[in-house]
Amino acid sequence: METQPAKKLDSPYYDIVIVGAGPVGLMLSTCLARWGYRIKHIDNRSEPTPTGRADGIQPRSLDLLRNMGLKSAIMAHKPARVYEVAFWDPPKNGNGIVRTGTWASCPSFIDARYPFTTLLHQGLIERVFISDLEKNNTKIQRPWTITGFKTDEKENPEYPVEVNLKHVDGTAEETVRAKYLFGGEGARSFVREQLKIGITHKDPIAHVWGVMDGVVKTDFPDIKMKCTIHSEHGSIMVIPREDNMVRLYIQIASSTDPDFNPRKTATTEEVQESAKRILQPYSIEWERVEWYSVYPIGQGISDKYTLDHRVFLGGDACHTHSPKAGQGMNTAFLDALNLAWKIHAVEGGLADRALLTTYEPERKSVAESLLDFDNRYAKLFSTKPSADTVEAASGQSKDQADDNDFIRTFKESCEFTSGYGVAYGPNSLNWSPEHSAKSPLIHPKGTKLRTGRIMINANVTRVVDANVVHLEQEIPLNGSFRIYVFAGKPSVTGQALKDFAKNLSDKRSFYGAYQRSDLSAVSHHDHLNPHSLFFTIATIFSAKRSSVEISRDLPELLARYRDLVYADDKWDRQVPNATAAAHAKMGLDEEKGGVVVVRPDGYVGVVASLVEGSGTVDALNEYFSSFTTKKLGEARSQL
Amino acid sequence: METQPAKKLDSPYYDIVIVGAGPVGLMLSTCLARWGYRIKHIDNRSEPTPTGRADGIQPRSLDLLRNMGLKSAIMAHKPARVYEVAFWDPPKNGNGIVRTGTWASCPSFIDARYPFTTLLHQGLIERVFISDLEKNNTKIQRPWTITGFKTDEKENPEYPVEVNLKHVDGTAEETVRAKYLFGGEGARSFVREQLKIGITHKDPIAHVWGVMDGVVKTDFPDIKMKCTIHSEHGSIMVIPREDNMVRLYIQIASSTDPDFNPRKTATTEEVQESAKRILQPYSIEWERVEWYSVYPIGQGISDKYTLDHRVFLGGDACHTHSPKAGQGMNTAFLDALNLAWKIHAVEGGLADRALLTTYEPERKSVAESLLDFDNRYAKLFSTKPSADTVEAASGQSKDQADDNDFIRTFKESCEFTSGYGVAYGPNSLNWSPEHSAKSPLIHPKGTKLRTGRIMINANVTRVVDANVVHLEQEIPLNGSFRIYVFAGKPSVTGQALKDFAKNLSDKRSFYGAYQRSDLSAVSHHDHLNPHSLFFTIATIFSAKRSSVEISRDLPELLARYRDLVYADDKWDRQVPNATAAAHAKMGLDEEKGGVVVVRPDGYVGVVASLVEGSGTVDALNEYFSSFTTKKLGEARSQL
Repeated sequence: METQPAKKLDSPYYDIVIVGAGPVGLMLSTCLARWGYRIKHIDNRSEPTPTGRADGIQPRSLDLLRNMGLKSAIMAHKPARVYEVAFWDPPKNGNGIVRTGTWASCPSFIDARYPFTTLLHQGLIERVFISDLEKNNTKIQRPWTITGFKTDEKENPEYPVEVNLKHVDGTAEETVRAKYLFGGEGARSFVREQLKIGITHKDPIAHVWGVMDGVVKTDFPDIKMKCTIHSEHGSIMVIPREDNMVRLYIQIASSTDPDFNPRKTATTEEVQESAKRILQPYSIEWERVEWYSVYPIGQGISDKYTLDHRVFLGGDACHTHSPKAGQGMNTAFLDALNLAWKIHAVEGGLADRALLTTYEPERKSVAESLLDFDNRYAKLFSTKPSADTVEAASGQSKDQADDNDFIRTFKESCEFTSGYGVAYGPNSLNWSPEHSAKSPLIHPKGTKLRTGRIMINANVTRVVDANVVHLEQEIPLNGSFRIYVFAGKPSVTGQALKDFAKNLSDKRSFYGAYQRSDLSAVSHHDHLNPHSLFFTIATIFSAKRSSVEISRDLPELLARYRDLVYADDKWDRQVPNATAAAHAKMGLDEEKGGVVVVRPDGYVGVVASLVEGSGTVDALNEYFSSFTTKKLGEARSQL
Repeated sequence: METQPAKKLDSPYYDIVIVGAGPVGLMLSTCLARWGYRIKHIDNRSEPTPTGRADGIQPRSLDLLRNMGLKSAIMAHKPARVYEVAFWDPPKNGNGIVRTGTWASCPSFIDARYPFTTLLHQGLIERVFISDLEKNNTKIQRPWTITGFKTDEKENPEYPVEVNLKHVDGTAEETVRAKYLFGGEGARSFVREQLKIGITHKDPIAHVWGVMDGVVKTDFPDIKMKCTIHSEHGSIMVIPREDNMVRLYIQIASSTDPDFNPRKTATTEEVQESAKRILQPYSIEWERVEWYSVYPIGQGISDKYTLDHRVFLGGDACHTHSPKAGQGMNTAFLDALNLAWKIHAVEGGLADRALLTTYEPERKSVAESLLDFDNRYAKLFSTKPSADTVEAASGQSKDQADDNDFIRTFKESCEFTSGYGVAYGPNSLNWSPEHSAKSPLIHPKGTKLRTGRIMINANVTRVVDANVVHLEQEIPLNGSFRIYVFAGKPSVTGQALKDFAKNLSDKRSFYGAYQRSDLSAVSHHDHLNPHSLFFTIATIFSAKRSSVEISRDLPELLARYRDLVYADDKWDRQVPNATAAAHAKMGLDEEKGGVVVVRPDGYVGVVASLVEGSGTVDALNEYFSSFTTKKLGEARSQL
């Protein structure tokens, strides 16, 4: 990539030093390695996570892994899939437990491609990333740790961060310089401590939990489901796993206990006995215990994610919470993804350094929502519901079940826990009426796409090979903004498309201003970034596939992305009467279309009408001008 | 497996000797290795197919590969997927070629799970099987060849076949004894020649074709589609491939040429020049040629597939034809699968040896259909259609396109080429009114399942974990008959299910008579073959998942298969008004259900009503009695 610094392979200079090879560090490393950055990645463990730890991949994260081409490697391990959650409580009369309801873990209103949680041992997930990293010549240096760092932009403006590293046994040391340092070392982050960034604890209520992975023999009917079980004898959460395993979270102590001690512990046998009592009248015996751990639930959030926009934190270093909602790894992935593409946009030369200031507010607000959710969820989970709520929840109908506080909280949280609820607030990237881009073409009436939210899923037919594909997956995670030209009917939008292409090719447009310098050397097989490394364009016609002729219906600039031209001709149950279901799902006019700009991480940036003349590109120039290094198009003259 | 011979690891005694490690040999070997048989598998090539050869996996074959757990390994190579075929012909007026129509390669009326052809280099497909074989301790011995064999049941009734093998360079020889010998060595089969089995050639018309795999640069718009192109300058078929490659089949000579010579050949350059002329006005240049070959199309079928039911033939040894319809490998797979499970049923002790006599008629009739199809298809493809048919086909509507003889033949053949059209005729396995089983409960009115045809696809919800699954894939290729108990409404069928289970457990039933002898040693995690190695039972209720309680709604025998209990509660577009879509698709009563017996290879054997009393099991006993070693139930007293 022309816009990136030459790799200095024999020097101690790196684009980034990443500390910690858990989910957050690995996601960051994997993205940046693919995009050509030079990475020093260390971890103080001598090998990846052997057992236990996080294991829930939420629907949105599975989309992301697929977008990176890593989903099939994950699924090859045959993970368990959680489609529903069952609630068990004491019966109104009598002893033991009864099922009081079940609920889809990712209900159909979310319209997820993969409406289930994927459960797989964290070590296997880590290895999928490590293997991808190695393909990009990046190897985790183990077992190494960080001993110090400092940032001085004056001393070395290009590589302002100096980092001191050493082998954990003290036999070797290294000092390297980097543009960035990332602390992804988990809750006890050295980087965070050195920066003297505090943790704000959200909730005084505390619980001590035991977690046990193993193979059991039981007549409990929902052992392959995710279950929350409350009984007279305590509470358990059941999580199915790969290879006939099951994970049990068992409450050992609560701050509401008269003799509460957050350091209370319990042996494997004690926890197993406790599980047996809670599950009565069902029996449970362990054939094998793979992993067992006891921990207090601490809920905290880092006050800052960065001080100088050179040294960043992410993942558990920024937010700790109960693992039971399965959010830790997923939040870590999205922290890293958010930072990765912004570093790429800045270091690649597209965006002002100020873009990096959007990382903390975007991700901290998600962490706050997570803690708020976790807090309510954990509190409910640890509190035996009253006989009344149990009775209300015992009804078979959904409406009756709604009366149970616990279940209602759970339902409200489905969108959040699936990962589809992540909503980034208005800023330069996520258009709102307060954005500096004021074109009246922005956010046309009727659009169902919400800026700062994930793009809506849709099936379309690829024109060149008639393959039926998932539109939202067609542009891989290549660090580029995704420009979806919903082109309506070719007979209606012909001139608008020509004008769009003509204005794009203007050197003052966002597109023309950031062309590749190696244009003539690009292979004709490259249909993702033929003109610019920062933009990939897909065109979707409201037409039958067989009626679309790329060379006739698209101007040359758009036709260059010929593998990314689609016919919106697949029926969709969500919009059964639409002739162009993808247009309809996005809320765009089925004849006139519209242009959707999606950030490299899949969140909608801005939507504009597709019109004849320069208006559409002008509107996008205004949008991009708010964070690009060059001022663009008409916006330039206004500034 | 108790019913199988102990493996004699140090002896020259094998269950089977397989000659040839192409698709047919590998499929046979893979099945039998998984089921515990001892295999000597040789191939005269020193490594798997390096380039070229067959590469089309049809929809039904992809189902099969998935059923074997091999689909994801195939798809990991990112094969091309053909959803549509485009037809190009000379325009009515003027020169060059125009697209005269397109047609789905697997139209929606077929209801395939994967309505596309998967295109991948044969060597990659072979390696997927080889890797699976190695997991089952079976290794191909290369490069070795067969030099002779003889069968003598009197001399050695247990291992009647003696086979002589040698290293291709003559440095080593081996003589081994086996129960079976399989010749899967391709068109020039040594085994077939030794048996003096002739080939019947179906059609005197002959063509010489060149086939070229490579990477091209072209402005031909359908280069990523499957295309048949007729022009004034000759004919081409275009087949997309993985890694931006394309395969071109180019006609070099035809018996209708005045100077026809079946040994005519052409250089790479000549074929490329010919392709350039045919594709005018489009341009085409080769960046790389991976493989090139010239061959005459010979259409022939072996007169016999076996003489003694000890030495068998399959794959190209039995049928040769044009490769253009992409049927060779798929037919080979199904030859092998058909034989594999029958050998297992006989050697495992379930079926009379006479079962093996069904192999030849079942598979030879499929080969005859294939040659008939290939003959018509190749003839049409090699003949430039008249201006009239081109004109008729030029119309956009399907009905007009029907008037083109070529397109009509193609459309009629879609079901056949997808693999879903394979129909085995009536015999002991495929019930018909002529079958010895005469129970009036068999083949209840309304059933849409056709004996000898593949089971119909359906989505259902698995009760234990609420996963939405593909019912037809839930029982893997484990060599067992699949007993699908469509159980209707629990409130209606309660007694019928109890009676069904009670009669199954009778020692004289097909199920009770073939129980495992190691019953007490079976792991409680085994939900496929807990009682018998020859039968796996799945139960599907016409009910919402949350309303099904396995321990309450199923008798103990059926509940033992708890991972194979389903709720028929998913909506299906094919039967939009059904409350129980799977029942409805099968044509079974949504309240009373019915029992479907599917052969181990996925073809429907018999369907019976589910009734109170012994009638249902009696009917199945009659069915199974026609080929099992023991006479069963009521049938026993009648014989």
